[in-house]
Amino acid sequence: MHTAPLMKSVLLHFDDDLDPATQLARAANLTPRQVERHRFPDGEIKLRLPGTLPAHVVILRSLNDPNAKLIELLLAAQTARTLGTTYLTLVAPYLAYMRQDIAFRPGEAVSQRIVGQFLAGLFDAVITVDPHLHRVTSLHEAVPIKQAIVLSGAPLLSDWIAARRQHPMFIGPDEESAQWIAMAANRHGFDHAVCRKVRHGDRAVEVTLPDVTVRGRCTVLIDDVASTGHSVARAAELLLAAGAASVDVAVTHALFSGDALQVMQDAGIGEVWSTDCIAHASNVVSMTGTIAEALARLEQNLT
Amino acid sequence: MHTAPLMKSVLLHFDDDLDPATQLARAANLTPRQVERHRFPDGEIKLRLPGTLPAHVVILRSLNDPNAKLIELLLAAQTARTLGTTYLTLVAPYLAYMRQDIAFRPGEAVSQRIVGQFLAGLFDAVITVDPHLHRVTSLHEAVPIKQAIVLSGAPLLSDWIAARRQHPMFIGPDEESAQWIAMAANRHGFDHAVCRKVRHGDRAVEVTLPDVTVRGRCTVLIDDVASTGHSVARAAELLLAAGAASVDVAVTHALFSGDALQVMQDAGIGEVWSTDCIAHASNVVSMTGTIAEALARLEQNLT
Repeated sequence: MHTAPLMKSVLLHFDDDLDPATQLARAANLTPRQVERHRFPDGEIKLRLPGTLPAHVVILRSLNDPNAKLIELLLAAQTARTLGTTYLTLVAPYLAYMRQDIAFRPGEAVSQRIVGQFLAGLFDAVITVDPHLHRVTSLHEAVPIKQAIVLSGAPLLSDWIAARRQHPMFIGPDEESAQWIAMAANRHGFDHAVCRKVRHGDRAVEVTLPDVTVRGRCTVLIDDVASTGHSVARAAELLLAAGAASVDVAVTHALFSGDALQVMQDAGIGEVWSTDCIAHASNVVSMTGTIAEALARLEQNLT
Repeated sequence: MHTAPLMKSVLLHFDDDLDPATQLARAANLTPRQVERHRFPDGEIKLRLPGTLPAHVVILRSLNDPNAKLIELLLAAQTARTLGTTYLTLVAPYLAYMRQDIAFRPGEAVSQRIVGQFLAGLFDAVITVDPHLHRVTSLHEAVPIKQAIVLSGAPLLSDWIAARRQHPMFIGPDEESAQWIAMAANRHGFDHAVCRKVRHGDRAVEVTLPDVTVRGRCTVLIDDVASTGHSVARAAELLLAAGAASVDVAVTHALFSGDALQVMQDAGIGEVWSTDCIAHASNVVSMTGTIAEALARLEQNLT
């Protein structure tokens, strides 16, 4: 007697994510399929998905430099729904627009809620790593979706550092990250503290060191995300001036733009380590296994 | 006795549309207000609208190079709804993604429907000019919205040509445009015909002239949109080889990308004329008055 095998879940990805998609598909036992993408001379894009899809489809897309990618997700998700998919999961190791979570001045777009609702309208589940949530307590508030799953890069970054630095002290560049830094440090019983930061512009920040003794210590500036590198550069200069033996940087999301690496190097920073949530030369920690485990738990609940 | 005046409708626009927005606001008796836009180094954008808005708000945005603009519209429209707006009109002189109206191969995203539904979810009315609709008969099919209003650049382009060419013959570069060409030509009783076109790629097209005598005639290649310029360039070469006295080009949407103007000039084309639906050096016809009249009719129906 023959029974038709259930069609394995498919992992859809784009051409620029071939390597991470191949790894994730292998780890999570998914069938990888590349979305065909054509960019017209006028800036429009055309997408083609496989002609038939299983009930559960996962789309892998890290949402750094997000605007065009969000339109691609709109096209891909709505098309998948017409090809047999009933449950659609977004794996966005980096989730965009999570920082504008209130209107700081009247009239400002609260892009966290708007983009969150946009994604919730397209997907049934979202899996992400260290989203930048400050004034909301759960990802579900920002992305009101059936399953809003948050993973963290902190444990693996902490393990990476533990293997390379003697009794390091973890320093967070701002108070917002205090809880996250504590979690990363406590895994190995490391000392930790956070700076105070006042931001005057994209590249103008004022940093004050915490009231701890850093003289002779291996310090590591650790955060969920770094962009221009100016905040960590300023903190590094202060740490070195205060006698720190070394300053390295570890971030989940290497969102580094423009001359960020140079800015950090000029400030005396030694190593820069990141997870592979955003592809970057500094990637040293792979989140593939962690994401694959989350997908396995999700699939188990689906059947 | 005092009565509070009704708050005049507002025309929201972006910094790169200051001139057309100022003209449209004056012609349509709207209060122009610029959306504040900040682009972060990581590619995210932050928008700020006026802190309070009237019941009817119009957003002006021509959707050439559409992807980032569509995300901006998502942010702006959803924010306007929180600031007092109950009726939201999009004026998109050029509407993007109208050409992919079916899945030519299984799995293709039917972006016309998907983007149309996306816009319909944000706005109550859309006003556009010469959308590229072929297999659907009304804009409402593509953008299922309360009011889907289609205007045409053909009458004003026809008038412009009538004032500058003796007994011109209007030639459409492909059969899809036959009806539109006929409308433009009939306004002044001009001869008209259409070529046959087979497309092999973005820049590879095969064109066959219609069976009409063009020797000694002032011909004008006229269409709703031109992008790379390759189709009209090929048609122009054939027309000149067949003895046409001159070939000019008139389009509603000057979507010209890259070296399009050079390609057309090299093919022997004389003048290139367009409406201001997409800002371009070839703009000679303003659609402001036509759009303002449509807005006035719309406002009348709202009160």
